[in-house]
Amino acid sequence: MMRRIAGVELGGTKCIVVMADETGQITARETIPTLDPVGTVAAIEAVLDGWWQEGAFEALGIASFGPLDLDRASPSYGNITSTAKAGWRDTPLASRLAARYPVPVAFDTDVNGAAFAERRWGAGQGLDDLAYVTVGTGVGVGLIVNGRTTRGIGHCEAGHMRVARLPGATWKGHCPFHGDCVEGLAAGPAIAACAGRDGATLSDEDPVWEQVVDALAQMSQALVSIAGPRKILFGGGVIASRPVLIARIEAQLRALIGDYLTLPAEDFVMAPGLGSLAGPLGPIALALDLLGDTAT
Amino acid sequence: MMRRIAGVELGGTKCIVVMADETGQITARETIPTLDPVGTVAAIEAVLDGWWQEGAFEALGIASFGPLDLDRASPSYGNITSTAKAGWRDTPLASRLAARYPVPVAFDTDVNGAAFAERRWGAGQGLDDLAYVTVGTGVGVGLIVNGRTTRGIGHCEAGHMRVARLPGATWKGHCPFHGDCVEGLAAGPAIAACAGRDGATLSDEDPVWEQVVDALAQMSQALVSIAGPRKILFGGGVIASRPVLIARIEAQLRALIGDYLTLPAEDFVMAPGLGSLAGPLGPIALALDLLGDTAT
Repeated sequence: MMRRIAGVELGGTKCIVVMADETGQITARETIPTLDPVGTVAAIEAVLDGWWQEGAFEALGIASFGPLDLDRASPSYGNITSTAKAGWRDTPLASRLAARYPVPVAFDTDVNGAAFAERRWGAGQGLDDLAYVTVGTGVGVGLIVNGRTTRGIGHCEAGHMRVARLPGATWKGHCPFHGDCVEGLAAGPAIAACAGRDGATLSDEDPVWEQVVDALAQMSQALVSIAGPRKILFGGGVIASRPVLIARIEAQLRALIGDYLTLPAEDFVMAPGLGSLAGPLGPIALALDLLGDTAT
Repeated sequence: MMRRIAGVELGGTKCIVVMADETGQITARETIPTLDPVGTVAAIEAVLDGWWQEGAFEALGIASFGPLDLDRASPSYGNITSTAKAGWRDTPLASRLAARYPVPVAFDTDVNGAAFAERRWGAGQGLDDLAYVTVGTGVGVGLIVNGRTTRGIGHCEAGHMRVARLPGATWKGHCPFHGDCVEGLAAGPAIAACAGRDGATLSDEDPVWEQVVDALAQMSQALVSIAGPRKILFGGGVIASRPVLIARIEAQLRALIGDYLTLPAEDFVMAPGLGSLAGPLGPIALALDLLGDTAT
């Protein structure tokens, strides 16, 4: 008898709701456009209600775009907080779904979910220290330290750290909060804004990739220096459509580290093992962890 | 009956060996110059042997300059590894002392030790997520995430992360590994090399402090973005002799973060509560944690 675990991956453009078992097999899947919060959450509930009527699920995982309030002691625990996405600021999410279904509810960022899915079934199996980076409409980083996500004053937001610019660079970057932070230099919209056209139409030799690789390599060096992941996985639309970037990021990361720390000789920077399933399986992995089903 | 815990803080210029109890009261203290490894370790053992003869101690903590091999599965666990300090590369430390005294031995970096001492008795009490930065002959960062030190491929080495340079800056920095990493811009020897004289002789308005503050604030922003500490404590000789830097680092950190994340309104960047005792009490705190004596 396989377990029945429900998962919600709430992204900025679409929401994927899945039913899966403990092996990561998805047995049902619905996609909902992410529109306004009221309609979107109601649509999520309609899907889950239907599945619940077919047979109770054992736990629910929610992995969402952020920033999120993940502090269980906070009155706004379970909310999407200071997002730039129109209408979604201060939206209750986990608390609302937790009130509807009498099961344990796991809640974390979409990228932390993906990191746990990769640890359980993908390219990070057996690793208690792992980073999962997605480069798409933004730059998100999921981070596992000692087998757990980081909390403290908030979840990992490494995509918004500042980095050194390439010599002579003057373009101001594209992040509405920070200009030339990592996301403002390396996300899809930043690439398009800097190059003047969609990144997908650029050659591998276009100079904008140097900026992208340099920003992501510096962020990776900071991750290694601070949190010590044993692998860094790079997914998301920008990387998936141009996988050659992975080797370039790794080479630049090794150059930045120099001889001071010893990285594993190979397979330190990699593509996600689950490909595009890392996202929707994220909430399933979070829920299994919450149930005490150990990953390794 | 108070506990008897022995501690060794091995620094680059001197080693402090202490006996203390679970309240952080130091009952005996010896200082040994850090010379060659053979003579220094023998001198440490002579002090500990003397105390052991007066009455067994219950545990031993060792907090050392690094980098260190902290992976218990590694054949070189307990060694100082790739240090630039002459003669100390690949020196066994914890394994040697663990073989001599039949007690639990805790081993970590000097700065991780100080972070645990501050968490137990100092300015970080009650915090499961805390960073302790020392700015002296180097820039070291101790980091507690979810109540534990980070491990993975290594301990925190945030002092060697790369940062953006101030506009127009061309000085190449002073780190033998990386040039203008944080340590290469902000440690005492870097300040002296950049200014052409000892930093202690400079006014608060000297432009070199702008470089120091900017590098340390960027490192702090990376720490916040990646690991989410609830406080960052700044100690070490450079800061202790010029405490005005703390407020300047905090102001620059808040400017870098912008509105994206919410820091506590005050007391986020602070001086260590234990002052110069954070170092020698570090190994005591590590040993108490190892014994399961909870800090909070």
